Amino acid sequence: MKIQEVERWGTFEIVMTGPSTGNPFQEVALSAVFEYHNDRIEVDGFYDGAGVYRIRFMPDREGAWRFITKSVTPELDDMVGSFVCTPPSPGNHGPVRVKDGYLFAYEDGTPYLPFGTTCYHWTHKGDRAHEQLTLEELDKSPFNKVRMCLLPTKDMRPDQVVYEGTCPEDVDLTRFNTDFFAHVEQCLSDLMKLGIEADLILFHPYDKQGGWGFNGLTREQDLFYLRYIIARFSAFRNVWWSLSNEYDFNTMKTVEDWDRLLQFVQRKDAYQHLSSIHNGTKMYEHTSEFDATKSWLTHQSIQHWDAEATTALRAAARKPVVIDEISYEGNVAKRWGNITGLELMDRYWTGLTRGGFIAHGECFVNKPTGAWISGGGRLYGESPERIRFLRKLMEEGPADWMAAREEGSYALLYLGKYRYSSYKLPMSADRQYQIELIDIWNMSVYSLDGTYAGQSDVTLPAEPYTALRVVAV
Amino acid sequence: MKIQEVERWGTFEIVMTGPSTGNPFQEVALSAVFEYHNDRIEVDGFYDGAGVYRIRFMPDREGAWRFITKSVTPELDDMVGSFVCTPPSPGNHGPVRVKDGYLFAYEDGTPYLPFGTTCYHWTHKGDRAHEQLTLEELDKSPFNKVRMCLLPTKDMRPDQVVYEGTCPEDVDLTRFNTDFFAHVEQCLSDLMKLGIEADLILFHPYDKQGGWGFNGLTREQDLFYLRYIIARFSAFRNVWWSLSNEYDFNTMKTVEDWDRLLQFVQRKDAYQHLSSIHNGTKMYEHTSEFDATKSWLTHQSIQHWDAEATTALRAAARKPVVIDEISYEGNVAKRWGNITGLELMDRYWTGLTRGGFIAHGECFVNKPTGAWISGGGRLYGESPERIRFLRKLMEEGPADWMAAREEGSYALLYLGKYRYSSYKLPMSADRQYQIELIDIWNMSVYSLDGTYAGQSDVTLPAEPYTALRVVAV
Repeated sequence: MKIQEVERWGTFEIVMTGPSTGNPFQEVALSAVFEYHNDRIEVDGFYDGAGVYRIRFMPDREGAWRFITKSVTPELDDMVGSFVCTPPSPGNHGPVRVKDGYLFAYEDGTPYLPFGTTCYHWTHKGDRAHEQLTLEELDKSPFNKVRMCLLPTKDMRPDQVVYEGTCPEDVDLTRFNTDFFAHVEQCLSDLMKLGIEADLILFHPYDKQGGWGFNGLTREQDLFYLRYIIARFSAFRNVWWSLSNEYDFNTMKTVEDWDRLLQFVQRKDAYQHLSSIHNGTKMYEHTSEFDATKSWLTHQSIQHWDAEATTALRAAARKPVVIDEISYEGNVAKRWGNITGLELMDRYWTGLTRGGFIAHGECFVNKPTGAWISGGGRLYGESPERIRFLRKLMEEGPADWMAAREEGSYALLYLGKYRYSSYKLPMSADRQYQIELIDIWNMSVYSLDGTYAGQSDVTLPAEPYTALRVVAV
Repeated sequence: MKIQEVERWGTFEIVMTGPSTGNPFQEVALSAVFEYHNDRIEVDGFYDGAGVYRIRFMPDREGAWRFITKSVTPELDDMVGSFVCTPPSPGNHGPVRVKDGYLFAYEDGTPYLPFGTTCYHWTHKGDRAHEQLTLEELDKSPFNKVRMCLLPTKDMRPDQVVYEGTCPEDVDLTRFNTDFFAHVEQCLSDLMKLGIEADLILFHPYDKQGGWGFNGLTREQDLFYLRYIIARFSAFRNVWWSLSNEYDFNTMKTVEDWDRLLQFVQRKDAYQHLSSIHNGTKMYEHTSEFDATKSWLTHQSIQHWDAEATTALRAAARKPVVIDEISYEGNVAKRWGNITGLELMDRYWTGLTRGGFIAHGECFVNKPTGAWISGGGRLYGESPERIRFLRKLMEEGPADWMAAREEGSYALLYLGKYRYSSYKLPMSADRQYQIELIDIWNMSVYSLDGTYAGQSDVTLPAEPYTALRVVAV
């Protein structure tokens, strides 16, 4: 007898057939309990259309697993089985977790530095060639996370949406479009193969009067939607939950609503994927309305245009700071999307050297493949190669660079727009340090002669957009 | 009989002789009452050494004035006289006053837009040739105000200081150095001839342990010093009082101390010159410690490195906002003094178009005449000519450009570091507007074809550091 196998943090799937009449999305409940030694983990299954039901599971330990299904529908109840969880294949490090307060690492311990980008609707064009182009571009890019929406905006009329129906007039909020979901899953797999995390945006506010109405569903409809998403997607190790984009721009929901929905996600997700919510303008201080200390937020997914805020954000919630929106490189008619590559890089360096993470976005008008931020395609900006350079420097440094700086063994210092003819470095007198001068725009690293020790006044060329890398020998 | 004449806002001076023994600075009180019709204005006189006493007065109305001196010292008491105040000579517009809440104008109504610079110790070198060089450079510059200190810093040992003595060990806090004051008065006159206001900094915190001790004088010593300064300088129409630079860095004084000293200045100064105090780091919000609504502050003399704060500062105190310190063009080893000319111009435009005023400073290392900010000399930076360009544009516009913008007749809009391919202008549909595109760095003004009316989406070249001037035809 051949035993089924699935690699650690891979997806094991149980496929069953059952009723196809009535509305199985609403009427048929299905789950399974997976057992590993004495540990039991229960996950929901989901209806995939045409009488097919699936239960997906992501095992996190190697060895023998057993399962048993549970349903009030007799055909789906009490099915038992087993599988063996094998070691992960190369490149599979498991889901990303928060580590040491402000950092991230994959579950196998490999450090993960989020260098994200944003392509809100790259999967909604109904154009596989365009998706392949986007995937190629992502593969060439320095980016290892992409923020992407599940729901269309008010004016979008994609071939398919999460629900059955193709326009606000005929959409059926009680039935999901299984083809739509299968397609998103294909995209999640595509990203996973490239080592890219999918920061899935589950709600957004860009659906005002006259649109789909998805930003003003009832509590029951919201939970119906979230339950289905979690059942289908949570066994993908590269999924992050971003409950909403710019949540405070949605006038149909309160902070209490968002809190309850986030608590629901936390309760239903058996794997505790990273989970957060992204703000609009409620960004300038931690208040009761924007309190990232809440236990259902694993990290801070911030919109803030001043990277210096990183320090205050770290202190306020003691969680990783990911500034997913800091203005995009581009030339559109809005301030959020028309900074230069140089300005974006200034913000990147300002944030990273303060212990935060910054994400990329790009929106140029009149480019052949449209605005990256909206639909993916090709990148036209000057920042991606500089972001790659920065990412490489970060990866060369200690995993916890802020702790190393505190301890005195390493520091990456960004001098910003300022021109220092000299700079006082408070190095330890007991150690020897090598100092490198970094040009963040021309991507050069120049080693200063000799070594330094103790408080030193280092002569510099007085150029803006430079950084210093100070490493104890 | 020939009647003495003095022009309006000029300085009338009574010279008398009296006791020269003992310590006349402390022991001899002298004042005079000046009468114009039924109006009576009393001002203090001062001892000028070698038995000479002077009383200075700045008449503000044309016509006949009478005076009578008052002193417990018989030789100085009860001297009467008269003079005629004549019309002001060309270029004499009187002292600068606050106008319409957030603006300034000379007393004759001529608008005054402060375009200041900073040369803290340009009068302390004991080198008249250097002072002439500084005056020449100021005359060529776009600047019409200079911030300057009366007191030396801890390590300075100028030929003379405000008091008798030349070093901390022999300085006599009970006697003023009249030659020092005569020299400062020469410099005030020099500035007046160039149409430049002197923003006199009376105290500063740069005099810590081992220095002169001027930042920790007793209340009586402070008042003795202020009374003498007001008696000597207040008849100069181009004087502003800046009670202290970076007052919050002086640990020897409290906010209450500063308030009392400012109240004293307000009470003693017969002409109510502009009066303020300049902050160090207490700049990010109006608090009880930094409350510019206090009646003895005529305007806000701010240190803040973010010009966008102008809006909040205007709203918080409803007084003119003068950001006298926004970081200087230069390349020294401190963030306050090493921004590029471009960055400084970005801050200028950001502040001015929000209804504030920005001041200039420059500090480059290794320049022939040293750092401008400290001692004057030559200017080496790239910002002055761009400041001249901005000043010219401001002078071409309406005196109250923020009110004109509100009213819809004029707007100067700065697009900052952003690159707009188009920009939505909410112009009135009832008027025709001409639009000009301004390159703030290359100092060009380009008129867009035709006229515009109503909400318009104006096509732009998507370049950073541009501004729009929109004028109703």
